[in-house]
Amino acid sequence: MSEHDYDARSIQAHAEWQGKFEIAARVRLENKDDLSIAYTPGVAAPCLAIEKDPSKSFLYTRRWNLCLVVTDGSAVLGLGDIGPEAAMPVMEGKCVLFKAFGDVDAFPLCIRSQDVDEIVRTVYLLSGSFGGINLEDISAPRCFEIERRLKEICDIPIFHDDQHGTAVVVLAALINALKLTGRAMDQVRIVFGGAGAATIAVARLLMSAGARNMIVCDRQGALYQGRSQGMNPEKEAIAAITNQEGLQGSLADAMKGADVFIGLSGPGTVTGDMVRSMAQDPIVFACANPDPEIDPREALEAGAAIMATGRSDYPNQINNVLAFPAIFRGTFDARASDINDDMKRAAAQALADMIPEDQLTDQRILPDAMDPAVKDTVAKAVFDAALASGLARL
Amino acid sequence: MSEHDYDARSIQAHAEWQGKFEIAARVRLENKDDLSIAYTPGVAAPCLAIEKDPSKSFLYTRRWNLCLVVTDGSAVLGLGDIGPEAAMPVMEGKCVLFKAFGDVDAFPLCIRSQDVDEIVRTVYLLSGSFGGINLEDISAPRCFEIERRLKEICDIPIFHDDQHGTAVVVLAALINALKLTGRAMDQVRIVFGGAGAATIAVARLLMSAGARNMIVCDRQGALYQGRSQGMNPEKEAIAAITNQEGLQGSLADAMKGADVFIGLSGPGTVTGDMVRSMAQDPIVFACANPDPEIDPREALEAGAAIMATGRSDYPNQINNVLAFPAIFRGTFDARASDINDDMKRAAAQALADMIPEDQLTDQRILPDAMDPAVKDTVAKAVFDAALASGLARL
Repeated sequence: MSEHDYDARSIQAHAEWQGKFEIAARVRLENKDDLSIAYTPGVAAPCLAIEKDPSKSFLYTRRWNLCLVVTDGSAVLGLGDIGPEAAMPVMEGKCVLFKAFGDVDAFPLCIRSQDVDEIVRTVYLLSGSFGGINLEDISAPRCFEIERRLKEICDIPIFHDDQHGTAVVVLAALINALKLTGRAMDQVRIVFGGAGAATIAVARLLMSAGARNMIVCDRQGALYQGRSQGMNPEKEAIAAITNQEGLQGSLADAMKGADVFIGLSGPGTVTGDMVRSMAQDPIVFACANPDPEIDPREALEAGAAIMATGRSDYPNQINNVLAFPAIFRGTFDARASDINDDMKRAAAQALADMIPEDQLTDQRILPDAMDPAVKDTVAKAVFDAALASGLARL
Repeated sequence: MSEHDYDARSIQAHAEWQGKFEIAARVRLENKDDLSIAYTPGVAAPCLAIEKDPSKSFLYTRRWNLCLVVTDGSAVLGLGDIGPEAAMPVMEGKCVLFKAFGDVDAFPLCIRSQDVDEIVRTVYLLSGSFGGINLEDISAPRCFEIERRLKEICDIPIFHDDQHGTAVVVLAALINALKLTGRAMDQVRIVFGGAGAATIAVARLLMSAGARNMIVCDRQGALYQGRSQGMNPEKEAIAAITNQEGLQGSLADAMKGADVFIGLSGPGTVTGDMVRSMAQDPIVFACANPDPEIDPREALEAGAAIMATGRSDYPNQINNVLAFPAIFRGTFDARASDINDDMKRAAAQALADMIPEDQLTDQRILPDAMDPAVKDTVAKAVFDAALASGLARL
């Protein structure tokens, strides 16, 4: 099915849905006594209890299960900076995924500003109404500063799914791909195509999981310490902890002899020859959506031992829906104050472990996005890691 | 049943509910094709359609039916300034009333700031995600400025229910009380107890409905042009268009010979003697909650011909739930850009007309809050008035 067919069906479906979510009441309002308990005068009692102890807002209101999905519309899917109103269909979609795959109540807000200070202040001012914040489709490098500052001033978890959700699923896929090809995380050479928010987060999470030899490449080639062109603070920080050998060449140069390629950039940046230049049994994750860095068939013909993409119509889909709903489920269940690297690694390991060793094949390194067991399995791992990290507030 | 019994039951109910609302999906997500239509890649099509024409956000997202219920927690019920987190049980309650009585999807946000500029800016930045804004429990006089400035900069309706919802229901009750006692709006003398946000709004709406002779009293007595003590810009504005005779006395002085008393202040401010000093067959609306300005039994003994309160356990309850859900229903159905006086008066007249003349008694001047016919009747009147006003965008 072509993109174009999806377009027409999606337009028609959206017009019929008139919104992909709605607000549902959890209380019966059938007589005046019901009103007196849910609203005045009875509601004064929980209000005063929360005034005395604000943590009671997690007991008497929906806050414990409520996630804000917030964007400024600056980097929506592959569409770019389309603005807040136009971003809403994506945000509504994200919210229904949160509900369907995590039993999390998520509400979408699109902010009419792309100013970092203003976005930070706005989200902070709303943070008392939510149990967690999911930043979405905010362009780099602003997304890094927004996330960092919100983590400093808010007492609820802040999660940028484009970074950390992606990182968790890539790590899960890589754990199983390494297992299948008999490699160890600390031995392989990993090359990244693209140096955006997702790559930075994936590289950092892989490093916390043991990866030692990584090179990040943007359009100008490898990031190395001291490179002066096309850098920003985040690229400089990642250059300082990767590419130990100081390689200065192109992506093609970097890929020579590499064990793993992870593409989080755009279509057509990798050729069959580049795959052929990699080490024996190379692992190729070409995650650009909808068009991968290299056509999966071409990569397999060029010798890729394991191939993953972001697409649902090929095997091994790197799909964030495997991560963010269940991560928030486990985080909310623990009432954790943060989502730290331990919790992300636990989520990745749980996802990887869902494929029993005897069922692990080059066509199946990740659970299916629709697998209903993902939620409880990953949520439990995240919950346990939150407890072990001392972040739970139960 | 005493307040205290409500308290214990309400605490227990809130702990069991764990939030009075949740997010419900309106789309099926059972297979990958469902995901491809509701989310990527299909969702790109409605996004791009909205980018081209932002008004399409009312077609492809929930915006057309979505109302923001927003407070700063500064004037919550009779509890005062209890802060944003503690205000949430009330806001959640308001949202479920919107749904139950208006089929409106309302979402609660409590802003962690009481600074007027910051509240205005925050709500404006979020206004592209909603079809309308309901300001709630924001203290006077800040609520006036916040409402005025938001109306100037937002292209969706801004409604402060504490003001305008109250005004609509009081006008409806007064229309029928005047009919029952054979009076005309432009002939009666109306005295207000309290000079807060609700009084100012009621006085203005009654004036737009023909009232000519009104005196507003605060704790220091009648507001008159030139009074220097305890004034603010809103009081000065209302003093300039009421109290034509320039009366300078107390509330008791003002009530002598008055036909109508409308209390929107606090308990115990009116005595039986004050009611006895009013004109023949006086109309007494003592709306302070939970304890009225005068005990209804005392007012009736003192000769009140028609008595209304804010309480559900006495006849003639002045209850905003009769107004705000259906007003937003009609407003959203018309996609009106504002809720103007014509629409408010239409809502009041429709409410009043719901009691057939032969069923109108001193015990029944308003429909019951639980009457399911209120929604469609009032919404249609508001819709028609929006059309007639040229505010509809259909």
